[in-house]
Amino acid sequence: MSVDAALAAARGMKEASLARLVELVSIPSISTDPAHAPDIRRAAEWVAERLRALGAEAVSIDETARHPVVYGEVRSDPAAPTLLVYGHYDVQPVDPVELWDSPPFSPTVRDGKLYARGACDDKGQLMTHLEAVAAWRAAGLQPPVNLKIVLEGEEEIGSPNLGDWVRARRERLGADLAVISDTSMLAPGTPSICYGLRGLAYVEIEVSGPPGDLHSGVYGGAVKNPASALAQIIAALHDEQGRVTVPGFYDKVRALDPAERAALAAVPFDLGAFRQVTGQAGGWGDPDHSIVERLGARPTLEVNGLWSGWTGPGAKTVLPAKAHAKVSMRLVPDQDPHEAAAQLAAHVQALCPAGVTVTVRELHGGWPARVDTQLPAMRAAARALEAAFGRAPHFTLEGGSVPVVALLEQELGLDTVMLGFGLPDDNLHAPNEKFNLENYYLGIETNLHFLANLAQAGRGA
Amino acid sequence: MSVDAALAAARGMKEASLARLVELVSIPSISTDPAHAPDIRRAAEWVAERLRALGAEAVSIDETARHPVVYGEVRSDPAAPTLLVYGHYDVQPVDPVELWDSPPFSPTVRDGKLYARGACDDKGQLMTHLEAVAAWRAAGLQPPVNLKIVLEGEEEIGSPNLGDWVRARRERLGADLAVISDTSMLAPGTPSICYGLRGLAYVEIEVSGPPGDLHSGVYGGAVKNPASALAQIIAALHDEQGRVTVPGFYDKVRALDPAERAALAAVPFDLGAFRQVTGQAGGWGDPDHSIVERLGARPTLEVNGLWSGWTGPGAKTVLPAKAHAKVSMRLVPDQDPHEAAAQLAAHVQALCPAGVTVTVRELHGGWPARVDTQLPAMRAAARALEAAFGRAPHFTLEGGSVPVVALLEQELGLDTVMLGFGLPDDNLHAPNEKFNLENYYLGIETNLHFLANLAQAGRGA
Repeated sequence: MSVDAALAAARGMKEASLARLVELVSIPSISTDPAHAPDIRRAAEWVAERLRALGAEAVSIDETARHPVVYGEVRSDPAAPTLLVYGHYDVQPVDPVELWDSPPFSPTVRDGKLYARGACDDKGQLMTHLEAVAAWRAAGLQPPVNLKIVLEGEEEIGSPNLGDWVRARRERLGADLAVISDTSMLAPGTPSICYGLRGLAYVEIEVSGPPGDLHSGVYGGAVKNPASALAQIIAALHDEQGRVTVPGFYDKVRALDPAERAALAAVPFDLGAFRQVTGQAGGWGDPDHSIVERLGARPTLEVNGLWSGWTGPGAKTVLPAKAHAKVSMRLVPDQDPHEAAAQLAAHVQALCPAGVTVTVRELHGGWPARVDTQLPAMRAAARALEAAFGRAPHFTLEGGSVPVVALLEQELGLDTVMLGFGLPDDNLHAPNEKFNLENYYLGIETNLHFLANLAQAGRGA
Repeated sequence: MSVDAALAAARGMKEASLARLVELVSIPSISTDPAHAPDIRRAAEWVAERLRALGAEAVSIDETARHPVVYGEVRSDPAAPTLLVYGHYDVQPVDPVELWDSPPFSPTVRDGKLYARGACDDKGQLMTHLEAVAAWRAAGLQPPVNLKIVLEGEEEIGSPNLGDWVRARRERLGADLAVISDTSMLAPGTPSICYGLRGLAYVEIEVSGPPGDLHSGVYGGAVKNPASALAQIIAALHDEQGRVTVPGFYDKVRALDPAERAALAAVPFDLGAFRQVTGQAGGWGDPDHSIVERLGARPTLEVNGLWSGWTGPGAKTVLPAKAHAKVSMRLVPDQDPHEAAAQLAAHVQALCPAGVTVTVRELHGGWPARVDTQLPAMRAAARALEAAFGRAPHFTLEGGSVPVVALLEQELGLDTVMLGFGLPDDNLHAPNEKFNLENYYLGIETNLHFLANLAQAGRGA
């Protein structure tokens, strides 16, 4: 089989694969810092040059309002499936730099791990895809599927320009499927595929009372206090057992079927780590669902911020004119972020006590994403992980949001396979970011199997 | 009667009385601003010199850690009652100075009112007492009671050194009664005596959850949120009708008797002004008591501040580690501020939901004050107001706190008559502070009657 030749080639060029990754992570491409704009440019040119070296066609560095998108196509058989590969070449800042054991842009291998900013997020993971192409080439073969490779330079600042870039290239980006390697496995040797991310509806609540702050001694006791009113509203957003009370909130939530619940129950959840991070022994929330289900499969409502009146040191006797809260809801299929925000706004209005008024303003929204684990592409990915790691993957749900997944679904109609090779202790966005080299090499092998499996399943699959 | 001669003398020297007040309010004795320390000193020297001119003995300018206390005694008959007169010669800042119609330290008379910073608070009011002494002197008489006059220079910065000054002079300051003119009448021609001020217990509540802020997408739905917990606690501090739910809170509250309630019901309360300032049509609070009773006669609990998590612009998806509130209680006789704080702390602990912890820290406390309206001194003050203004005064309760009243009660065992000549529209602490000259002159006359009435009632009264 051709994949065996590619696997042999990959195993034969590990040192070269590592050397290329080291080159890329040496570039301090911090997207949020204007001082690093030239480094962002260098990183874009490096990955573009690498695409050309791999035989990619139509390679371009596309300008946006801020940092460019690098694009290239690895063309194979027109009858074969086409896979859109997304990755990002920008990285997070490195502060506090004094907490790093080795300089963040002087990549260092210790104990089988490569330490550097971006080693995992996302340079190491995107390179597993480029090195897979390199392995096919080294074996004298062309990849068995067509690849359209999109490498963004603004992921760490919220992808402000990716939507416009995609919308301007809807035809060009046509594909059968997308793959993103920017998530984590459960543990070393325990592969997993994330098949769902939550959406987001984020609002700001403002309760207004008197036209100005009042002296709490002079007026206290006879005026409805906006801070108390806000507390009443927020306290009523959950029932005693942690269920969200917003009418209609759960109406469109897709039920978990018994097989899915059984699969989630089989996910090895590290309760000790959860307790350590959260400080809570047993967790909190909807008693009808496990912690794993609450963290990924169920929608939530959380207070993100509160402010009102005097918040400085000491005692100031003010009866505040206004009180504010930031509240966000994490959403699951088939909830609609704008509908959820409107439902919350209506509920808040209904809860608002007499004597004050309330407004709810929608700040930000994002759609939930869920990929059917029974899709042929998902089975292809699962078999690829099993072939590379020697163990069938778990299918997991993650609580956060990766907006590009919803973007690819909405603009291009693509399902995305989240084939992550990171680990929970890779220190993303923190000092001493690392990438286990075993995961790098097995990630490349996984991608070889994945492409072979996709080609075998064919376009109609 | 000797008071008639003094009244005639007072009426004959109105111009001189005004000229002396104009001199005093020309001195910019702003206590909070170190740049004005020399002006504070000038004002202290001016009032000390004035005391000497009035024949006071033992006049001193007593240094404190910041601004001096000026003291003097006007000795009369040792068998007569002794009245301690308190006033303050410092003033508030004048910002925003551009909103003044005439410069704050260039006193200007317009339409029968003297405009200047300190015209009412408290230079004009303290001068009513000094000018009353001047009237007795002008009539060739000595005042019918002994006076111990205490003029403070730190009232507008919270009287940080007055307590120590008083405690060091307990013997020296022995008296039968105290009088303070630093409050307001209800309206022009509608005299009133404030017979009660509320106390204060001010606490800070801190709810603690996870050891650090968490990502609300990753952990939301499975961790008790401290901001939600704080909202639950605060929402439970009042019942649906606005009564405070803290166990024991009302136990020591002195009941209002029917006569007192009737007297408070007769106080001309300006509901229109209340609505305008508070923005609330009907008011809020304990339905068993009128707005007037809620504002002065009943204890309250108010949220003064709230803060937790993200309070800046935009959306940050944090599940906060901590949530804070400032909460204060206004107290009435016979509540104890430390006991009230402890009761609240115990209640907050009992309300704290599982998964988070809470601490309550006492920041500040002050005792409530109430003066029996049936005291001979209060009747003497009421008759004096009626004689001067032609109308019997109302007895009122004020919601705020005047710590010196509690200080004089606790350290010297003195009841205080609050004989105020200000008006609600005198713009205290604001631009265009003023003092109605009619109230200045009738205030002097009231003091003449008051002293005569006290002398008549005698020491045992």
